[in-house]
Amino acid sequence: MNRFRLSRFKEKSVQTRFAVLLSGKMIGIGALLGGIKLFSYLLDTPAGAAPMQTVAHKAGDFVSPVNTIWVLVTAFLVFFMQAGFMALEAGFARSRESVNIMMECIFDTCLCGLLYFAFGFAFQFGLGNGLIGHSFFFLHGMTASYTYGGLFDTKVAFLAFFLFQFAFADTASTVTSGAMVGRTSFKGDILYSICVSGFIYPIFGHWVWGPGGWLGNTMGWFHSLSPHAVFRDFAGSTVVHTVGGFIALAGAIALGPRLGRTFKRDGGGPTAPHDVNIAAIGGVILWFGWYGFNPGSTLSGMDWVGIGRVAANTTLAACAGGMIAVLFVYPRSKKWDVGMSINGFLGGLVAITCPCYWVSPAGAIMLGAVAGIIVPLGIDLLEHFRIDDPIGAVAVHGFAGIWGTLSLGLFATGQYGLPTPDGADNKTLVVKGLFFGGGMDQLKAQFIGSLTCVVIVTGVALIIMFAIKQLPGSWNLRLERDLELEGIDITEHGLPAYHMEFGQGFSYTTYTGKAVGETSEVVQPTKETV
Amino acid sequence: MNRFRLSRFKEKSVQTRFAVLLSGKMIGIGALLGGIKLFSYLLDTPAGAAPMQTVAHKAGDFVSPVNTIWVLVTAFLVFFMQAGFMALEAGFARSRESVNIMMECIFDTCLCGLLYFAFGFAFQFGLGNGLIGHSFFFLHGMTASYTYGGLFDTKVAFLAFFLFQFAFADTASTVTSGAMVGRTSFKGDILYSICVSGFIYPIFGHWVWGPGGWLGNTMGWFHSLSPHAVFRDFAGSTVVHTVGGFIALAGAIALGPRLGRTFKRDGGGPTAPHDVNIAAIGGVILWFGWYGFNPGSTLSGMDWVGIGRVAANTTLAACAGGMIAVLFVYPRSKKWDVGMSINGFLGGLVAITCPCYWVSPAGAIMLGAVAGIIVPLGIDLLEHFRIDDPIGAVAVHGFAGIWGTLSLGLFATGQYGLPTPDGADNKTLVVKGLFFGGGMDQLKAQFIGSLTCVVIVTGVALIIMFAIKQLPGSWNLRLERDLELEGIDITEHGLPAYHMEFGQGFSYTTYTGKAVGETSEVVQPTKETV
Amino acid sequence: MNRFRLSRFKEKSVQTRFAVLLSGKMIGIGALLGGIKLFSYLLDTPAGAAPMQTVAHKAGDFVSPVNTIWVLVTAFLVFFMQAGFMALEAGFARSRESVNIMMECIFDTCLCGLLYFAFGFAFQFGLGNGLIGHSFFFLHGMTASYTYGGLFDTKVAFLAFFLFQFAFADTASTVTSGAMVGRTSFKGDILYSICVSGFIYPIFGHWVWGPGGWLGNTMGWFHSLSPHAVFRDFAGSTVVHTVGGFIALAGAIALGPRLGRTFKRDGGGPTAPHDVNIAAIGGVILWFGWYGFNPGSTLSGMDWVGIGRVAANTTLAACAGGMIAVLFVYPRSKKWDVGMSINGFLGGLVAITCPCYWVSPAGAIMLGAVAGIIVPLGIDLLEHFRIDDPIGAVAVHGFAGIWGTLSLGLFATGQYGLPTPDGADNKTLVVKGLFFGGGMDQLKAQFIGSLTCVVIVTGVALIIMFAIKQLPGSWNLRLERDLELEGIDITEHGLPAYHMEFGQGFSYTTYTGKAVGETSEVVQPTKETV
Repeated sequence: MNRFRLSRFKEKSVQTRFAVLLSGKMIGIGALLGGIKLFSYLLDTPAGAAPMQTVAHKAGDFVSPVNTIWVLVTAFLVFFMQAGFMALEAGFARSRESVNIMMECIFDTCLCGLLYFAFGFAFQFGLGNGLIGHSFFFLHGMTASYTYGGLFDTKVAFLAFFLFQFAFADTASTVTSGAMVGRTSFKGDILYSICVSGFIYPIFGHWVWGPGGWLGNTMGWFHSLSPHAVFRDFAGSTVVHTVGGFIALAGAIALGPRLGRTFKRDGGGPTAPHDVNIAAIGGVILWFGWYGFNPGSTLSGMDWVGIGRVAANTTLAACAGGMIAVLFVYPRSKKWDVGMSINGFLGGLVAITCPCYWVSPAGAIMLGAVAGIIVPLGIDLLEHFRIDDPIGAVAVHGFAGIWGTLSLGLFATGQYGLPTPDGADNKTLVVKGLFFGGGMDQLKAQFIGSLTCVVIVTGVALIIMFAIKQLPGSWNLRLERDLELEGIDITEHGLPAYHMEFGQGFSYTTYTGKAVGETSEVVQPTKETV
Repeated sequence: MNRFRLSRFKEKSVQTRFAVLLSGKMIGIGALLGGIKLFSYLLDTPAGAAPMQTVAHKAGDFVSPVNTIWVLVTAFLVFFMQAGFMALEAGFARSRESVNIMMECIFDTCLCGLLYFAFGFAFQFGLGNGLIGHSFFFLHGMTASYTYGGLFDTKVAFLAFFLFQFAFADTASTVTSGAMVGRTSFKGDILYSICVSGFIYPIFGHWVWGPGGWLGNTMGWFHSLSPHAVFRDFAGSTVVHTVGGFIALAGAIALGPRLGRTFKRDGGGPTAPHDVNIAAIGGVILWFGWYGFNPGSTLSGMDWVGIGRVAANTTLAACAGGMIAVLFVYPRSKKWDVGMSINGFLGGLVAITCPCYWVSPAGAIMLGAVAGIIVPLGIDLLEHFRIDDPIGAVAVHGFAGIWGTLSLGLFATGQYGLPTPDGADNKTLVVKGLFFGGGMDQLKAQFIGSLTCVVIVTGVALIIMFAIKQLPGSWNLRLERDLELEGIDITEHGLPAYHMEFGQGFSYTTYTGKAVGETSEVVQPTKETV
Repeated sequence: MNRFRLSRFKEKSVQTRFAVLLSGKMIGIGALLGGIKLFSYLLDTPAGAAPMQTVAHKAGDFVSPVNTIWVLVTAFLVFFMQAGFMALEAGFARSRESVNIMMECIFDTCLCGLLYFAFGFAFQFGLGNGLIGHSFFFLHGMTASYTYGGLFDTKVAFLAFFLFQFAFADTASTVTSGAMVGRTSFKGDILYSICVSGFIYPIFGHWVWGPGGWLGNTMGWFHSLSPHAVFRDFAGSTVVHTVGGFIALAGAIALGPRLGRTFKRDGGGPTAPHDVNIAAIGGVILWFGWYGFNPGSTLSGMDWVGIGRVAANTTLAACAGGMIAVLFVYPRSKKWDVGMSINGFLGGLVAITCPCYWVSPAGAIMLGAVAGIIVPLGIDLLEHFRIDDPIGAVAVHGFAGIWGTLSLGLFATGQYGLPTPDGADNKTLVVKGLFFGGGMDQLKAQFIGSLTCVVIVTGVALIIMFAIKQLPGSWNLRLERDLELEGIDITEHGLPAYHMEFGQGFSYTTYTGKAVGETSEVVQPTKETV
């Protein structure tokens, strides 16, 4: 039998069939093995080091990279706040003035960059006297790392430091535009922006943060009033936000309200936000950007405990501000006010900006909560005085900025000093507030600094704004009446913000739930548009 | 001749002419030289180091800065996911309910921050027992770096660690709100959010990630079922996404569908997304934020190979999920479904979240592709059961979260262990899945962990949601019928999402390509609106 | 008397009264102390290190973590540019074609990721010859860090390097889609995207950046024309932007204009942007993402001076481009053109991308300013040739990319060489341009590289685009006429971008300031809509 079967292999047809079967099997096995091979090939991840060059590093080699990376990443975040401001301001504004907001933010950023390069940075961070710096014009004479005018090495790349500070200057400039939305001529905007980005912000900034600045070092003429403490502003509640907010106030006063804007005591009220969604997203972008603003202000990634504390304090103050603002206005309106929640957390963020390094998380919550009450009250105050601030910039940046600055004198725990390029220095120059047994020293210094800012910056800004309001024609700060009536976006920029194609890219539904289509003549309800 | 000419210099007029010419030439040369000088001055960039202070560093000084910077930057990205959720949810929802979405995300973030500070963090990361932590209430007793309850130094600043974990808690809370859009009363939202952010998420999180948590350490009662492996969830497919997704499911069941929402088997279907653009951008923001979520979960920048692998795996799983979801639904609808592409890549991202550290790129693609099929099937399943989930949160976070968790037991290559503050430890605690010869051990552990989550979290959430649904009036989980009909944005928040000014900030064009203007009475076609 | 009073304590009522008073006082004091205790408990922030494990680190341990963190963070930013492109393109486009833009960006990203994993990365960064790489298919054979085909250790995690390069490939792919908006069939989009992401970009990229690539190493056949310098493109003015821009041009030529699009010389003009706000925000997101694109291209955080310089140069070029573009078109139109400001700063960013490492801040401003003139002229040129580029991709990426590439040969200061994983190498391979006494060498090399790109890439792209245009039915590059007329969003993707609910989520106001409501029949003015 066996033999018989084997003998059958001599037959042609059997051989063929066998060959086919065998080939099939082999292909199958091959495919299986191949598949397994491919599978393991695809999934295989061999990892092994291949160090080719050898460079002997010392530990000190890493300080500047770590600090520069930290400052750059946070500078990027601060820059990104521009997108947040654009979305927030446009969303809170009317649709007819939102293109103007976009354009101002972009143009002012470009302007600020060039001015800051030419002389803004020199005024603020150049070595000079207590009032103004005068080196580094056009960034001339810069060194590898920025050294505070040759006094102290930050161990941060000079141009990374420059970028970080530019992003701050740009923020101050943008805050200003917030209260002046919808009625400022574009040429007027250019003029005041030059003053803000090129002069007011950098010069006041020099007083607090510049090498030898009088507020940050000696308190100048006020030394005898505050002999034991100097003005401290970690990330700019005063330098950026009070400055920006009070220039905004001066601008809003000089401009007067937008045409058609009536106030509560006259039976009117604020204009409706034209896009709540984009405003809210913009607010969150700002919160995100604040993680550059505050933690980056250590200028040092080596102070790892400090950057963690600053970031957490920033968060908690924002949370408290956002929640308290909503709960504060709810009993009055019986509405859960989304605009107030946004301005509330922004107020908390502004407030924590000054004391973020020196307070505890619980302190951050308390001072953020207070900011959450200040913001709605501040908005009411401006409404009462018939000042048209379409996005609440004065209350959020101006008033919460003052509160934040003062709060350092109350909540500083006395445990923290200053960040250094090599780590925290919590031994010298420790800040202690009233509630922690530090007495009135720091509070007095904060009060002097904040008051100086409000008085001088507002004064100068009022002069500038009213001066620009005297200029003729299109250079006047205020857009001409006809152009404003026709719509600032159309008259200044030539186009409206939105242009929809009905039925193809855009459709809507009526109250009754039916979709609205359109015939050749008039809009009429139909079953389905698209 | 020569002499004659020279003598002419004695003449006054010649002298004058010569002087003028000479001055001109000199000014010209001077201007040229000055221009060159100015040019080189402007373009010159001298760079030289100016090291002033000298601090002697040891190599070990850099571990905590590197890890803290990494954790902070990734925490910022995770926080930024809020903007992504807001945009995605609002875009997918109807315009009438988008203000409510904004408000919930903001308010819940504020609430979560304060609760997490007060006790959420303590429950999750405090030292306690296998079920709950009970130290660090109000962050009391915190140390410079977080040390897992004193057991193991993360070499990450305590408050940076806190911030990172807060951002995770906030994500879980926001995922929940996704399936409950449009019919949840705001007071009801506050109540369930307190339960989610303050209790359910942190306590379940303790089980997996907390010091001594039973699922992450011993498998507790189930130790005998899984003696060789413990439950692993690198960045939270289960802890964040399954938790969030199944609470969302419980909420959607308790609430019932929105008024007017009909289902496919009843001849209806999902409501149209009101703004596809913002939804898509929101989806990409989420993808961007996921680069914080997953790579940051190493808690260690020192594990440089690990963070690179996690980031690449995250990307590839998203790519596979997005593509497969689209290709999977295309034959059915013959449409390239943009909503499905977004939910597909989100499903891939959710799935890779658990195994991202332990699989290869090819494994990531495979498991992401499977997620791209699970998501559309999951959406169909909810539609079949008449559960109204306006943005697909249950399918994307709940179902893909389960799959991702299980997939670790299949795809783990057996090459990787755990990140440590000082670098990767790929020797102890290596994870190997079924497909790589690791047998069923890890898969069993994953199954136990995932099932525990689904059963317990869904059970607790159902009890809470139905309990809140028993509350009277405005505290009831479900918005009153009249208020929902009138529109949740208007009745709860007092304003619609959009308010356009026709003709000035907003215009539209008809089918026929003509622009629609408006006269004093009715809307009629005109040539050009603006 | 004294005694009498004391004796009264024996009376019951007096005792009781005393006890009550005492208890009250004690409770008060206790509450006060407790409050103080609670207050200090809440505010207390003890900080102290708790180092448990001890790992002895060497300084060299930090190079790879620092570089990998830097590359990853910047890769995330580059990826985020997708959100910017989506917002920018959709905002500039018509509402009827914006869903298509969203879908293309998402789908192409997914596609690009998978192709780049499979072979794109292998072609570009695998070791091979001067024309193409052929290792690392499916990432097979990867090492811990990427080593330029085994030649030079980048000290960046392999997969972090992969992710960074994927994000670049994705950008090139997205740039392409910009000029093809609104009339490309989705299947056609898939086909050409495969060619771009999988072949054209990676192979050309290999020539410049790949190990042994001919343009970046020897100049190949053109060596004798440029014996002293090789083609340099720091971050991709040519490799990403000229490539993307000229493929876009080829696509726009092959497609022809959108139906109904007329050109200026025919009495028409560009279509109106449908959402200026989202376009502007998208532009700023792109600027933000560029901080990943350029500074990340050092592939080294250790070159801390270099990353600072690149970041600052990037900023200043953008500022100059944005401002000059606006000022350049203002005299013509008397409008402050927001679209031009965006395309202007994008042009500046594209231009600085090639030379960002080698020029000074003042040089960056000058070359950015020139880009700000090239962009509007380029847009006019395409309008003149009746090429429909809805978002200006060809001018911004193509033309400004050429200029930026050439500008290196003019503005390179001769101070900088190349970044290395361990810091800057400013001694070997220093680049010096014409204006700084470097002669024509570098300019010639740049010219050769840029011309090669334009000729070869455009040629190949034209062949591919016209070939796809020969395909039948839905595979044809151009969408069928009927489908385009009906609207690409609706016919390809099944839904319009926007669907509003009038009166509840959406309202509008007429010219006269009155709100428009609606009755059951037609739209009529009413006092208040909501």
